[in-house]
Amino acid sequence: MQKPSVPKGTRDFSPVEMNRRQYIFDTVKEVFRLYGFSPLETPAMENLSTLLGKYGDEGDKLLFKILNSGDYGAGLDDEEVRSASKICEKGLRYDLTVPFARYVVQHQNEIVFPFKRYQIQPVWRADRPQKGRYREFYQCDVDIIGSRSLLGEVELVKIVADVFARLGIKVVLKINNRKILYGIAETIGHADKMTDITVAIDKLEKIGAENVNAELRERGIDDKAIAMLQPILELAGDNMTKLNKLESILAGSETGLAGIDEMRTLFGYMADSGIDLSTELDLSLARGLNYYTGAIFEVKACDYAIGSICGGGRYDNLTGIFGLPDVSGVGISFGADRIYDVLSGLELFPEDVDCSTRLLFMNMGGEEEKASLTLLSQVRKTGIPAEIYPENAKMKKQMEYANRRAIPFVAIIGSRELEQRRATVKNMRTGEQCDVPFESVPEFVKQ
Amino acid sequence: MQKPSVPKGTRDFSPVEMNRRQYIFDTVKEVFRLYGFSPLETPAMENLSTLLGKYGDEGDKLLFKILNSGDYGAGLDDEEVRSASKICEKGLRYDLTVPFARYVVQHQNEIVFPFKRYQIQPVWRADRPQKGRYREFYQCDVDIIGSRSLLGEVELVKIVADVFARLGIKVVLKINNRKILYGIAETIGHADKMTDITVAIDKLEKIGAENVNAELRERGIDDKAIAMLQPILELAGDNMTKLNKLESILAGSETGLAGIDEMRTLFGYMADSGIDLSTELDLSLARGLNYYTGAIFEVKACDYAIGSICGGGRYDNLTGIFGLPDVSGVGISFGADRIYDVLSGLELFPEDVDCSTRLLFMNMGGEEEKASLTLLSQVRKTGIPAEIYPENAKMKKQMEYANRRAIPFVAIIGSRELEQRRATVKNMRTGEQCDVPFESVPEFVKQ
Repeated sequence: MQKPSVPKGTRDFSPVEMNRRQYIFDTVKEVFRLYGFSPLETPAMENLSTLLGKYGDEGDKLLFKILNSGDYGAGLDDEEVRSASKICEKGLRYDLTVPFARYVVQHQNEIVFPFKRYQIQPVWRADRPQKGRYREFYQCDVDIIGSRSLLGEVELVKIVADVFARLGIKVVLKINNRKILYGIAETIGHADKMTDITVAIDKLEKIGAENVNAELRERGIDDKAIAMLQPILELAGDNMTKLNKLESILAGSETGLAGIDEMRTLFGYMADSGIDLSTELDLSLARGLNYYTGAIFEVKACDYAIGSICGGGRYDNLTGIFGLPDVSGVGISFGADRIYDVLSGLELFPEDVDCSTRLLFMNMGGEEEKASLTLLSQVRKTGIPAEIYPENAKMKKQMEYANRRAIPFVAIIGSRELEQRRATVKNMRTGEQCDVPFESVPEFVKQ
Repeated sequence: MQKPSVPKGTRDFSPVEMNRRQYIFDTVKEVFRLYGFSPLETPAMENLSTLLGKYGDEGDKLLFKILNSGDYGAGLDDEEVRSASKICEKGLRYDLTVPFARYVVQHQNEIVFPFKRYQIQPVWRADRPQKGRYREFYQCDVDIIGSRSLLGEVELVKIVADVFARLGIKVVLKINNRKILYGIAETIGHADKMTDITVAIDKLEKIGAENVNAELRERGIDDKAIAMLQPILELAGDNMTKLNKLESILAGSETGLAGIDEMRTLFGYMADSGIDLSTELDLSLARGLNYYTGAIFEVKACDYAIGSICGGGRYDNLTGIFGLPDVSGVGISFGADRIYDVLSGLELFPEDVDCSTRLLFMNMGGEEEKASLTLLSQVRKTGIPAEIYPENAKMKKQMEYANRRAIPFVAIIGSRELEQRRATVKNMRTGEQCDVPFESVPEFVKQ
């Protein structure tokens, strides 16, 4: 018989991995709730009509399609059967953004706006599996929709600061604004080529200025424009200095100036709030997704090279694709897999994250087992996770179980202990053994 | 443009529903951890070879199959394209049990046995959607695998008692044993028809004795056997009395007697542990799934008619289907959707389950907004979920937002409040308003 396996690009999460993942999800969830965001979940399957055409041609190809149930080919000719559109009506969600937009439009009359929701669910992409890229992975999205207020951006920046402070990850927040990028495109005489320009300069850090310029030329940007662009991308100084210099450069672009104004307001709010977060206005930051229309964000870990671990921005027309125009929102998404790698790489997971059970009772059978069961119930009543080895097996086997499960305390109730009503409690880390009166065991093993 | 929708049989979960669902999941998770169970997750997609043939012919038809990505029909002739097995290699999981068995076999060398895991994930079935039956729904499974000890059953019974006590649902635990059912089949002379007998008598409560007898006849059980079966199913008295009577009836069946012995041990453990749970030996309880080999359980709510809200049992050969024989386990599964309906129907959700944000700051703009933002940060530092209305909108609009979000407290900092450094805090339930010094606001809105 073949050894069973999971589909390529997918993963099982073992208890150790799950405890670490739950630590990340619990941390972000707690912060989201503290900031007044409510949970939302949408189904794994969406109608293909909801998904298709929302992620570009490449994205459409990466959708996992679900075969219609029942006799899926009945009444279709062979050509129709060969056309996925006839035999599949549903697909797995590709991200949380499009289902969220679909939800907002579908439930617009029940939703209280501004709608602040978070959503932590898996998404599926038929990407070529490779290191660090999976076909099933979780996204953690948090959005405020139905308000143009820059306080939305401020709240998200605070959330970023709070989440990474709690996780102990030193980060830098890179920030830019699509209106400024438009202003730049306009100023260098290529307002129509904003997407080409942003796609190219987004690669600045990765491929360097020369290669970016080559790509710009390929995309039809003339040398004069490229020469104008260069000094803008090299603007130096702190964020406010950069904005001041930019103001004179973009003086002719109304949109550009509006973007500068937004950034000033945002930085002002951030200074007032005393947010403890290193923040950098990065004019080369573009982010691929074309639905962004205002501020854009990206978060990088300072001490671990892994690309961005969180990102997002302002969008003015996300729900337009489903027929509801003019609803502005702002959102960010935390990359759980990368955050996991950073925490692992820097050994930042809390020491007790791997330990679920705090106390194991050895099973000595008979009356000793009975006494252990009674004490076990009392330990659990105090909220301490505890268990008993289910069989009267050899001590060595039971001890090995405790060790491999990383259980910090083991209680032994043998005949002597039963008589004296004192358990032998062993600290598995130090090897130390103590005689503890039955009634004091919960207190003894508490942290 | 057509109003967007979700595929039939699937659901969005709004913030109100999510808060209530999370209350259920958090409660069961907390209990699972208290009893020493560790979390596990498996991918939504499994290879069809893992899933097919595990749920019977009917089950195979209810699997959602995923179209191979890329050019799925390339190199296939038309007949092959019409055969789902050629164009689909993956399917969505149908339950958590088969993926768990697959996981145990695949990772047998890393797992610490006895392996105690819980798993809370959605499953998908292409059932005909109808009231209370969905195509995507969550299962909450908890299992101990790799031990034959009846302490496993005892722990699960304790978990049942603890979970429903915490949720405030009065339940009765129905319990039976497949060995006893086999003993009965053997005793009435139809050892070969145990499945037919159990399938029929499982319907006793639903369709009554006469209809059960008719079905037994249809399934080839003769009248003499039916006449012998009747008094067994009608055995009266408490659990131990029933077992004693049964012992003489099944005296000729070794398996039957072994089942009785197991039940005596289990009831003995339960009595010793002082478990506060109404428990009934129900000889008509059979449960459909044929992999059970020992104790079987079902939990019903006492005050709400909805069928079983939790069930499970002992299985001796779950992993055999993947080539690993002789691994015994015992598990139960909580029905989150039905538990939700019981809690709703009996109004047992805690009063504050719907409230995520505890305090809303009205937004009065300018310096008042600034002061509100500062105080907001301080409130959040104490762990109280709070937010500020993002715009200086009309008071009425902001108040309506607080009301519709069920936010219990609203803080107003206008010019007078700013001057006196005292916020006006309104209790939205009572309508009462108080002047509260800025620094006392966190304390004031605490529960």
